[in-house]
Amino acid sequence: MVKIGVIPGDGVGPEVTAQGLAVLELVGGLDGFRYELEEFDLGGERYMATGEVLTDATLARLRSCRAILLGAVGHPGVPPGVLEKGILLKLRFDFQQYINLRPVHLYPGVQTPIRDKGPDDIDMLVVRENNEDLYVGVGGFTRKGTPEEVALQTSVNTRAGVERCVRYAFEQARKRAGAGPFRGLSKADRDAGMTRQVTLVAKTNVLTFAHDLWMRTFEEVGREYPDIKRDYQHVDACCMRMVVSPERFDVIVTTNMFGDIITDLGAVLQGGMGLAASGNLNPEGTAPSMFEPVHGSAPDIAGKGIANPLASVLSVAMMLDHLDVPAAAARIRRAVAQVLAEPGPRTPDLGGKATTAEVGRAVVEALRA
Amino acid sequence: MVKIGVIPGDGVGPEVTAQGLAVLELVGGLDGFRYELEEFDLGGERYMATGEVLTDATLARLRSCRAILLGAVGHPGVPPGVLEKGILLKLRFDFQQYINLRPVHLYPGVQTPIRDKGPDDIDMLVVRENNEDLYVGVGGFTRKGTPEEVALQTSVNTRAGVERCVRYAFEQARKRAGAGPFRGLSKADRDAGMTRQVTLVAKTNVLTFAHDLWMRTFEEVGREYPDIKRDYQHVDACCMRMVVSPERFDVIVTTNMFGDIITDLGAVLQGGMGLAASGNLNPEGTAPSMFEPVHGSAPDIAGKGIANPLASVLSVAMMLDHLDVPAAAARIRRAVAQVLAEPGPRTPDLGGKATTAEVGRAVVEALRA
Ligand SMILES: CC(C)[C@H](C(=O)O)[C@@H](O)C(=O)O
Ligand SMILES: CC(C)[C@H](C(=O)O)[C@@H](O)C(=O)O
Repeated sequence: MVKIGVIPGDGVGPEVTAQGLAVLELVGGLDGFRYELEEFDLGGERYMATGEVLTDATLARLRSCRAILLGAVGHPGVPPGVLEKGILLKLRFDFQQYINLRPVHLYPGVQTPIRDKGPDDIDMLVVRENNEDLYVGVGGFTRKGTPEEVALQTSVNTRAGVERCVRYAFEQARKRAGAGPFRGLSKADRDAGMTRQVTLVAKTNVLTFAHDLWMRTFEEVGREYPDIKRDYQHVDACCMRMVVSPERFDVIVTTNMFGDIITDLGAVLQGGMGLAASGNLNPEGTAPSMFEPVHGSAPDIAGKGIANPLASVLSVAMMLDHLDVPAAAARIRRAVAQVLAEPGPRTPDLGGKATTAEVGRAVVEALRA
Repeated sequence: MVKIGVIPGDGVGPEVTAQGLAVLELVGGLDGFRYELEEFDLGGERYMATGEVLTDATLARLRSCRAILLGAVGHPGVPPGVLEKGILLKLRFDFQQYINLRPVHLYPGVQTPIRDKGPDDIDMLVVRENNEDLYVGVGGFTRKGTPEEVALQTSVNTRAGVERCVRYAFEQARKRAGAGPFRGLSKADRDAGMTRQVTLVAKTNVLTFAHDLWMRTFEEVGREYPDIKRDYQHVDACCMRMVVSPERFDVIVTTNMFGDIITDLGAVLQGGMGLAASGNLNPEGTAPSMFEPVHGSAPDIAGKGIANPLASVLSVAMMLDHLDVPAAAARIRRAVAQVLAEPGPRTPDLGGKATTAEVGRAVVEALRA
C-alpha cells in the first residue's frame, strides 16, 4: 500500500487536483496499483485563517508519504515569499527533491503560439536543479530603509549538488535514446556514435564563479557519456532559440533560477500553463517526491471551475512513473493525447468553453474505453 | 564638434558598424550635425594577437568621447568572461552607464514568430539596470576542484542604484504619453488619470532580499507618478506573457540579469536579433554612453557579409537621440521603417538573400529620397 499525500492548496489547486485524483483512482483500479491518500490542509487560505504555514508535525506526516500531489500554493493576501519559502521551497529542500523535472511536449491537436512549429519540433525535457542557487535564501540587507541601503542575494552552488543534477540529465538523455535518436544531431555527431543531446543553459561569461563550477562539472560528467552530445547555450540565447528553433533542444540541464524562467517559456511552447506538469524528485527515494502543475493558484479564475485539469493529470502520470508503475503513467498520457487529438471539451485556456470537470471526465472516459 | 568613439570589434561587428557609420555620415550632413570619429581596436582578435584587453590609456581616450558606437565583442578562442568583463562590462561600469535601454518594436513588414501578433501588439521599452546585480563579479570558490567545492555568486543591489533606474523608467513612461495612452490600460485605470504603465519584472517571492529592495523602491518612486500605472510580474510569468500577450507591456524595468534574458526574448518578438538596438546610458553625461546592437559577434556568419546592419543603424539612431539630435534619429527610424515596409533587400535572418552592404545602401537611399 503506497501512501500518497495530497495538498490541494489554494485557488484553482483543489479544482484541478480533484480531477487528477479521479484519474488516479481509475488507473489505480485498472493497473491494480494499491494506494491510500492522506490530505493536507496547507496554503494561503489556511495561513490567513490560522497564521500557521507548516508545522513540524505536518512535515513529519508528509515525510511518511511515498509521494505528494500538490495543487497550488499562493494567495494574493499573503506577503511574497511567506508561502513559497514556508511550504513549497521548504518541502523541495527538506525532502531533498533536488531535481525539478519539466517535460516540454506539444501534443498533437494543441496549438503552439509559435508560427510554423508543430509537435515534431517541440519535445524537450528540462532538468532544473531544485535545491541550490539563488533559491537557498542566503542574503541580507545593510542600512535597510536608508538611501545607503544595500541588499545582497547569493547563489550557492556545490559540486555535489551540481554533479547529481548534471548526471541525472545525462541519464535521462540515455533513456530517451529508446525513443530514437535526437533529430537535431548533425551527421558528424551521429557518425561519432551520439544519439541524444544535453544542453547546459547558464551564463558562464558573466557568472564566472557559479557557472564555472557548472561548466567544469558538465564537461567532466559528460565525458562519461560519449553517446550523448554536450551542448551549451547562454540563458539569453536559449530563450531566443527556444522560440525560434525549439527543435534544437533535447534534454536541457540548468540552474534553479534559470530553470524557473525557461520552463515557463517551455510551457508557452507546449500550449500554455494548462498543460505543464512537473516533478520535484528525490531520485533516491530517501524522502517523498512531489508532483505539481507548473501553473500557480491563478486567483483570477479560481472558483469558476474552468482551470485546465490536464497539468494536474499529467503530474499524476509523472508520479506514477516515479512510483514505478510506468504502464499506468503511459495509459494516462495516451488518454490525454487522445482527448487533445480529437474534437472534444477544452477549457478556455485552450480556446474552449468546457469546465475543469468536463475535461477531467473526458480523460476518465478515454481511460475506460 | 562631437567626438564619437567607434569600437568595431569582432566577428560581424566591423561589417555592421560600417553600415551604421555610412548612415551616420549621411544624416550628419542632412542635419548639420558635426562630429569626428576615433576608432578603437579592441576585442577578441586583438586580445589573441597582443594579450591586451583594455589598457588604462585606451580607457582614458574612450572617456574623452561623447558617445561610443560598438559593433560586437566576442571570440570563440577566448575563455568565457575575459572579453565580457574586460571590455563590455568594464565600460558599462566604469562609465556609469547604469541604464541599458532596449526598445522592442515590431516594424510593419517584419514578421514576428508569434502567431496572430502584429506591430500594434509589440511595442515596449525595456529599461534594464546595467551596473549592479549578479553582474558585479562578486563571488568566489572554496575547495575548488574538490568534491566539496562551493561556488558563490552574489547579486549586489543598492538603493541608489535601483532608484535611479526605476526613476528613469517612470520618466520614459511619461515621455511615451506623447505617443498616446497605452492601450493596455483598463477603463478604471484611465478614469483614474493614468496614461502609461511601468511593469517591474523581478522575483520577489524568492529573492526576498534583493527584490524586496526593488519592490519598495518601485512603490515609493512610483507614487510620485500618479499618471503612470504600476504593474508587477514575476520574471517567469513575464517570459510567458511576452509571448502570449505582448500587448500588455509598455515600459518594463528590471534587474541586470533578468533584463539580459527578457530582452533576447524581446528581440525575437520584434523579428530577431538583426533588428535589436540598445543603448548603455549614462543619463547625466558624466562619461560617454555606448550604443550597440544586441546581437553579438556571430562567428558563424562573420566574414560572409550577410549580417543584418539594421540593429547597428538603429543603435546609431539611439545615439543621436542621446546626443540631442532627435530629428536626425527620427529620420533614420523613418528610413528603416520605409525599407522594411516595402519589398526590397533583406538579409537572410529576415528571409532574404541580400548582403549587409545592400541593406545599408537601401537605408542610405531612403534617407536621400
Ligand atoms: C512559486 C515559486 C516559488 C516557484 C519557483 O520559482 O520555483 C514557481 O514559479 C515554480 O516554478 O514552481
Ligand atoms: C555579452 C554579455 C556580457 C552581455 C550581457 O549579458 O549583458 C550580452 O548578452 C548583452 O545582453 O549585452
